[in-house]
Amino acid sequence: MHPDLLDLAFLLGRWAGEGDGEYPTIEPFRYGEEVTFSHVGKPFLAYAQRSWSLEDGRPLHAEMGYWRCPSPGRVEAVVAHPTGHAEVSEGSVASTAVSIVSVAISRTSSAKEVEALVRDLEVVGDHLSYELKMAAVSQPLAVHLRGRLRRMTGPYQTSTP
Amino acid sequence: MHPDLLDLAFLLGRWAGEGDGEYPTIEPFRYGEEVTFSHVGKPFLAYAQRSWSLEDGRPLHAEMGYWRCPSPGRVEAVVAHPTGHAEVSEGSVASTAVSIVSVAISRTSSAKEVEALVRDLEVVGDHLSYELKMAAVSQPLAVHLRGRLRRMTGPYQTSTP
Repeated sequence: MHPDLLDLAFLLGRWAGEGDGEYPTIEPFRYGEEVTFSHVGKPFLAYAQRSWSLEDGRPLHAEMGYWRCPSPGRVEAVVAHPTGHAEVSEGSVASTAVSIVSVAISRTSSAKEVEALVRDLEVVGDHLSYELKMAAVSQPLAVHLRGRLRRMTGPYQTSTP
Repeated sequence: MHPDLLDLAFLLGRWAGEGDGEYPTIEPFRYGEEVTFSHVGKPFLAYAQRSWSLEDGRPLHAEMGYWRCPSPGRVEAVVAHPTGHAEVSEGSVASTAVSIVSVAISRTSSAKEVEALVRDLEVVGDHLSYELKMAAVSQPLAVHLRGRLRRMTGPYQTSTP
């Protein structure tokens, strides 16, 4: 692994579990989720996420991008969203907790307005929990997603669709 | 496949081949490359690219994101780059040719300046060729990459590292 990634090494691997979604403009919902962090020896982690309905397995959200550690304790993330948003977030990592806040969210002409994303993530043992707050469609910053994932080891253990 | 994607259906699949890179600030280079476009039934294509040195197989660039077709003939792309850039590009598709131009390139604090990306891509039969022009690090728009890929069918046929 590239030495620049040491502060983020605890994220490496495949994680799966469930989460709760809410927002002032929608009905609360639950989802299944899979997240992977991988590397190829270069100074970035590749990140991929997908979620699905716990009712019928249909795909819900997905996002992909790269996480970097430009200096000890600092984190940068670039994330593409299929909703037409390109997120650049920055923040910090301490021990096994990451907090990043969007510094730019660009969007395509057809995409809804998203003003801010705040991501807090923590790994304790084999468990990864996160909270994502969002300011979008004229709403103030509010909790949107809370997820609880477990590190997958050995043969793939969940029944993801 | 979601009906909104019909104009981009010709991209679906796995493509592999080689390319030539150049830029006023660097030595010309050749690379191996793999590109995949996939879908999950929703109105976006997932896009993933990686390239490697033809000399020793070491990874070079990678990028990931989503392509959308918000209305007939229109194309939107959101692409995350491990260099710390988040690209939003828009343009058009006609027959099996796509032309998109960056409308926003956000970047992390540690990333180099990239001002514009212009992507032209065409599929003829089982061959995908593309050209990427870039304006970056105070250089005017200039050709950066030209690739020639072939559609991979059946068992995976290339010796990608």
